[in-house]
Amino acid sequence: MAPLLEIQHRDPGSRARTGVLNLAHGQVRTPAFVPLATKGTIKGLEPREVRALGYDMVLGNTFHLFLAPGHELVKDQGGLHEFMRWEEPIITDSGGFQVFSMGHGTVADEIKGRAPSGSDRAGAILGIEEEGVRFRSYIDGGERFMAPETSMEVQAALGSDIALAFDECTPFHVTREYTERSTERTHRWLDRCIAWHDEHQPVGQALYSISQGGVYEDLRRAATRHVAQTRAPGVAIGGSLGADKPQMYEVVDWATDELERVAPDKPRHLLGIGEVDDLVRGVELGIDTFDCAMPTRIGRHGMALVPDPSRRWRIDLTKGRMKQAKEPIMEDCPCPACSQGFTRAYLHYLFGAHELTALRLVTLHNLAFIARLMADLRGAIATGTLPQVAAAIRAGAAPGALATAAA
Amino acid sequence: MAPLLEIQHRDPGSRARTGVLNLAHGQVRTPAFVPLATKGTIKGLEPREVRALGYDMVLGNTFHLFLAPGHELVKDQGGLHEFMRWEEPIITDSGGFQVFSMGHGTVADEIKGRAPSGSDRAGAILGIEEEGVRFRSYIDGGERFMAPETSMEVQAALGSDIALAFDECTPFHVTREYTERSTERTHRWLDRCIAWHDEHQPVGQALYSISQGGVYEDLRRAATRHVAQTRAPGVAIGGSLGADKPQMYEVVDWATDELERVAPDKPRHLLGIGEVDDLVRGVELGIDTFDCAMPTRIGRHGMALVPDPSRRWRIDLTKGRMKQAKEPIMEDCPCPACSQGFTRAYLHYLFGAHELTALRLVTLHNLAFIARLMADLRGAIATGTLPQVAAAIRAGAAPGALATAAA
Repeated sequence: MAPLLEIQHRDPGSRARTGVLNLAHGQVRTPAFVPLATKGTIKGLEPREVRALGYDMVLGNTFHLFLAPGHELVKDQGGLHEFMRWEEPIITDSGGFQVFSMGHGTVADEIKGRAPSGSDRAGAILGIEEEGVRFRSYIDGGERFMAPETSMEVQAALGSDIALAFDECTPFHVTREYTERSTERTHRWLDRCIAWHDEHQPVGQALYSISQGGVYEDLRRAATRHVAQTRAPGVAIGGSLGADKPQMYEVVDWATDELERVAPDKPRHLLGIGEVDDLVRGVELGIDTFDCAMPTRIGRHGMALVPDPSRRWRIDLTKGRMKQAKEPIMEDCPCPACSQGFTRAYLHYLFGAHELTALRLVTLHNLAFIARLMADLRGAIATGTLPQVAAAIRAGAAPGALATAAA
Repeated sequence: MAPLLEIQHRDPGSRARTGVLNLAHGQVRTPAFVPLATKGTIKGLEPREVRALGYDMVLGNTFHLFLAPGHELVKDQGGLHEFMRWEEPIITDSGGFQVFSMGHGTVADEIKGRAPSGSDRAGAILGIEEEGVRFRSYIDGGERFMAPETSMEVQAALGSDIALAFDECTPFHVTREYTERSTERTHRWLDRCIAWHDEHQPVGQALYSISQGGVYEDLRRAATRHVAQTRAPGVAIGGSLGADKPQMYEVVDWATDELERVAPDKPRHLLGIGEVDDLVRGVELGIDTFDCAMPTRIGRHGMALVPDPSRRWRIDLTKGRMKQAKEPIMEDCPCPACSQGFTRAYLHYLFGAHELTALRLVTLHNLAFIARLMADLRGAIATGTLPQVAAAIRAGAAPGALATAAA
C-alpha cells in the first residue's frame, strides 16, 4: 500500500518538501492550499470550477454539517462527496474550533484571523466537561452535545478522506495553566478518537491528531511530540498560534521541529492559515497542507488578491477609487474574472449593486491566485529554487510559473 | 443591407414565424426568449454561461443603469457590451415601466407579474408632465428627471442594439379615459424618441415603438396601428395586458392582428411575459421576442421549472418534502445543475443555508429549460409541426428536441 504521504522532493535549506497525499478519493499534490466548503459548498462556486483552478481537496465542517442538514441525512444521500458532487478528497474539521469559539469568544488581535462568523457566534456554549461539550444550536436553539466520539461518528458519516480529532481549541488570551490543563484533556480526547476510529474503522478515512499547547514553547513542543507519537497517521497544528505573524511562525517552527524528529513522514496540516506570506513561510517550515477562509471570505467582501506585499496582497474593489478603473484585478491573470476582461470598475459597480456575480468572480480570482502560488512553491522545491521563488513572492512577484522562471 | 427581421419559416395555422434578427452585435434566432441583465449582469451568472445555454440576446434596463452606475460611466467604459462583457446583442428597456411602477403602484392580480422589485418601489414618482417624469432615486434619494430624450440619450450611451421608446406604462386598474389620454401622450413621446434618434443616429441601434392602449380593444388596436406605422423599425407590446391569461392572450391577439395588416415584417417584442404556456401562445400569436424576470427570479427563490402544467411548470425546492429527494430537478435534463447530479435534497439544503451556489444552479436550470423550449418552438415552426409540439408542451412534455421528435 502506498504511504499516506509520499515525499518527493526536499528543499535543502529548509523543512520544505513536496509530495503526494494518497487518499481514498485521489491524490493531493503537496504543499497544497485547501479551500473551504464549510457547509458542503464552496460558496458561490460549482465543484468543477474549483477543480479547474487546480485544487485537489476541499474542507468540510463537522460542526455546521452536524447541525444542518445533519450527518444522518448526508450519509443517507451517499456521503458528503456524493451530496455536494465533489469527487476528489475531502478533509473535515472536527468541530472543535467552532464549538469552542462560541465559549471562549475571540481576541481582536489574535493572529489566526479565525474570528467566528455570525453563524458561529449565534450559538452558545453551555458546558465543557471531560465527556464533551454541550452547546446551543445556532439553527434551532436546541441543546446539542458533542463528544470526541460524536465528532468521529459525524465525520465517518460524512465519509471524508481525512478526519480531524476533536480538540479543545484554546484562544490566545487564556493562561498557561488553562492551556496546560486543556491540552491534557485534548490528549485524552485524542485517545478516545483513535479508539472510536479503531473500533469502527471508517472505510478510506485517515485520522489526523491535533497539536495544541498554545504559545508556550515547552507545552507546544510536548503536545506536538505527544500527538505525533500516537497511531494517528497525520498531524494538524491547531489552537492559538500567537498574537502576530512572528510569533505564529515561531510556534509553527517549534511544532515542525518536533515533527521532524519524532514523525518526519507524517503529513502536516496547518489549521486556519492562508495569507500569502504565511503560506510561503509555512511551506518553508515544512507544512504540507493549509486551510483558510481568507481567499473566499475576503472575495465575497470585495477584496481581491494582487501581488503587492505593501498592501498585504489585496485591493479593496469597493473603494471609490475603483469606480472608473479600466484595468482587470490583475494584468495577465489567467483567472475567469481577469481573463474575460471584467474591469475593476465593473466589479466595483457590481459590489455596490449587491450583485451575486461580483462575489463569484472575485472568489474565483482569489482561489486562482492561491492555486498558482502553491504550484509555484511546489515547482520551486522540486527544482531547488525555493529561496529565489520565496524571495520573489515576498517582493511582489505575480504567481504563475515563477518556479520555471527561477529554474 | 439585410432586413432587421429576416423571416424564414411560417406556421400555416397561426401567426407563428421563425427568423433571424440582424443586429449590430450579431444575429438573434427568433422566436427567442431574452434573459434579464437588468443591472448589467444576469444575476449570479457569467455572460459565457448564458451564451452556452443558447441565448443570443439579453435585456438591460435604462432606469436602473441611469441611476447606477450612470450611463456616462458606462459609455466611458466602452458601452454596456464592453462593461458587462457580453458581446452579443442587447435590448434595453426604456425605463418607462420602472418609472411608472413607482407612481401607479401595482395590482396584485395583474397578469404581467411585473410587480416592481424592492428597489423599484423604494423610489417615488414626483410628477408626470408632458415634458417627462420627475422621480426620486432609490439609490441616493436625489431628484431625477426622465424625458423621452433622456431615455434615448441613456440608451444611446449604453449602446444597445435595440432601444425601446419611452412610454407611460399604464397599469390594469386605471380608467379607459386615463388609458386613452396616456396612450396619446405615449405617441407624442414616441415622436420625440424618433426625432432624437433621427438627429443623433446612434450607431447600430434599432428603435422599437411601444404599443399601449391597455385592455380596450379599440384603443389597443388603434395604438398598435399608430406605432407600427411610424418609422420605428420594430414594435413592442407593452402596458397592461389584462387581469388573467385569457385576457392577456386576447390583447396580444388584437395587437398582432393589427401588426399582420400594417407592418407584417417588423419584429415584435412582448414585454414582461415568459411563463411556459404564455411563451407557447405568444409564439402562436406571432411574437418574435419575449423578456421576463420569471425564470431567473423564481430560480433565486428556490423555484425550478419542470414539465408539469398542473404545477404551473414549477416545483418549490424550499419545501420540506424536498429534504430527502434524491432525484435531480428534472430527469435527463442537460443543464449544469441536473447533468452534474445535484439532487433536490442538496438544493433544498443549500437554500435553507442561504448558500449562493443554490441560486446559481437553479437559475441555470431555469434558463436552460426556457432555452430548450424556444429551440423546440423554432424547430417546430421550421418543420411544420407547431400544433403537435405546442400540444405536447401544454400536456407536459419535457423540452429538448421535441420538434425533431414530432417531425
